[in-house]
Formats: sequence, C-alpha cells, structure tokens
Amino acid sequence: MYPNDGFRELGRQECLRLMTKVPVGRIVFTRGALPAVLPVNFGLDDDGAVLLRTSAASDLVRAVEGAVVAFEADDVDAARQSGWSVVVTGSATVVTDAAEHERLARTGPASWVPAPQEAFIRIEPELVTGRELVGGRTLYGVDIGT
Amino acid sequence: MYPNDGFRELGRQECLRLMTKVPVGRIVFTRGALPAVLPVNFGLDDDGAVLLRTSAASDLVRAVEGAVVAFEADDVDAARQSGWSVVVTGSATVVTDAAEHERLARTGPASWVPAPQEAFIRIEPELVTGRELVGGRTLYGVDIGT
Repeated sequence: MYPNDGFRELGRQECLRLMTKVPVGRIVFTRGALPAVLPVNFGLDDDGAVLLRTSAASDLVRAVEGAVVAFEADDVDAARQSGWSVVVTGSATVVTDAAEHERLARTGPASWVPAPQEAFIRIEPELVTGRELVGGRTLYGVDIGT
Repeated sequence: MYPNDGFRELGRQECLRLMTKVPVGRIVFTRGALPAVLPVNFGLDDDGAVLLRTSAASDLVRAVEGAVVAFEADDVDAARQSGWSVVVTGSATVVTDAAEHERLARTGPASWVPAPQEAFIRIEPELVTGRELVGGRTLYGVDIGT
C-alpha cells in the first residue's frame, strides 16, 4: 500500500472532513528514543487542530509535550482494498489556559477512561496530508472486478 | 485512552494471536526528521516478524531500511469503548536473500498495488507489547452499563 502510484492525494479540507468520520486515531511520537504509537479517541478543533483528552498524569502527556508528533486516522476496507488515510503533523502542547481548558471540557472529545485530573493535548495542524487508495480492486468507489 | 490504568497488558503470544485477526496495520517511522505513519496490509512470519510487501522503488523502503520502526495493529469498537492495540518494535530490513524472497512471494502478504519489482520488508519482533481497553463501558466483554 505504499507505491508512488495507485493513490489519490487528498486536499487539506478533504482530509479534515474525512477525519470527522472516525472516532479513533493514532498518535505517533518518540518514547525513550524509540518510535511509539497509541490509539486514542479524538476531536478536531475549528482550525483543524487535533484534540486529545487524557489523564494529566499520563506518560503520554510527558512524552509529547512540546514535541512534533503525527496523528493518523484511517478507514480501510480490506475486502475491497480501498480506503483513505490522513496524517496531521505538528507540535503537541498541553492546554494550560484555564478558559481554553473550560471550553474544551465542554466541547472537546469525551474521556473514555476518566481520570481525577484531565489534560487536553492539542496537535497543531501544521501539515495535513492524506490519500485514498485507488489502485486496488476499487477505483473511486466503482468496483472494477478482481 | 492512555492513562496508566483502565487497561489490561497483553502477553506476547496473545499480541501475536490478535494481530492475525486484522489485515491492516500501520508502520511508524521517521521521514525527513519528522514522525511518519502509514497504513499497510501485512502478514506475520512464523517467528512473529511483521512482513510487508511493497514496491522495491518505494519511498517506504528507502525510509525504513536498517531503521528501528514500530508497527501497530488495533481493533477498537468506539461504541463500546473497548478494543485492543498491539505494537511490534524492531529493526526493519529489506529481504535480499533470493530463496527467502521466493518463499515470501509464495507465503507472505499479497500486494494490494502490484509493482514491477516488489520488495519484502521484515520487522523483527524485538519488542511486542499490547493492551486491551477494559476501563470503558465494557469490562472483559461484559457490558457494565453507562
């Protein structure tokens, strides 16, 4: 699924629109000099920033604060060998502003595992890339047969 | 989904067994000093190594050859807030041995987007970790209500 052809590149707005269709993505970061990846539920802010809600005491907060991370979401139909994948790459910060924290507590993603003290992580949408698999059996949604 | 509790840690064999249940995972690597992540279909070798099949000319081959990468697979049910995630971390190598290449061409993962010249990437299962979400609404498959 990674040749240079067989895919259609997606525009930024299309990427952000697709991301709203799935509740879970994966944050990609570095932990102890090793690549790390973790599925998390997420939300999108109005400007396209990825919002995560987690325990303020979590390893994730410590690992990503101030770092450039990637956040991936996808929806792939293996039987049809079709689907899309979007990656948002940018700086991750923990929201410290009280008013902003309060806003996100109301409008941001829900917590799947509530913690005594929660933190919001914001990933800036500095780079938004995505692509649709069109080289498999399915081309733009039209099954062209096996 | 990342507090230190609310999850059950999975053993290596359980991780590898779960990985056989999904056709697509995500390879996590570094590209141009930035974190990168890409969904790919995959297979598992007998020893637990992750096998990818891609174009020999792909950017992926150039980016991961000789590097330590992570490979993630998951299955998350957002409605039930339950699921599992497995990460294999290890060195990625391109298979160059002719006999091994021939074996994988017969038994390895299929190519979704066939290329004129294909390469197999092997990710050593140096570190295999996984966890099951049990802190959401669903605890070990038993719905404990909202």
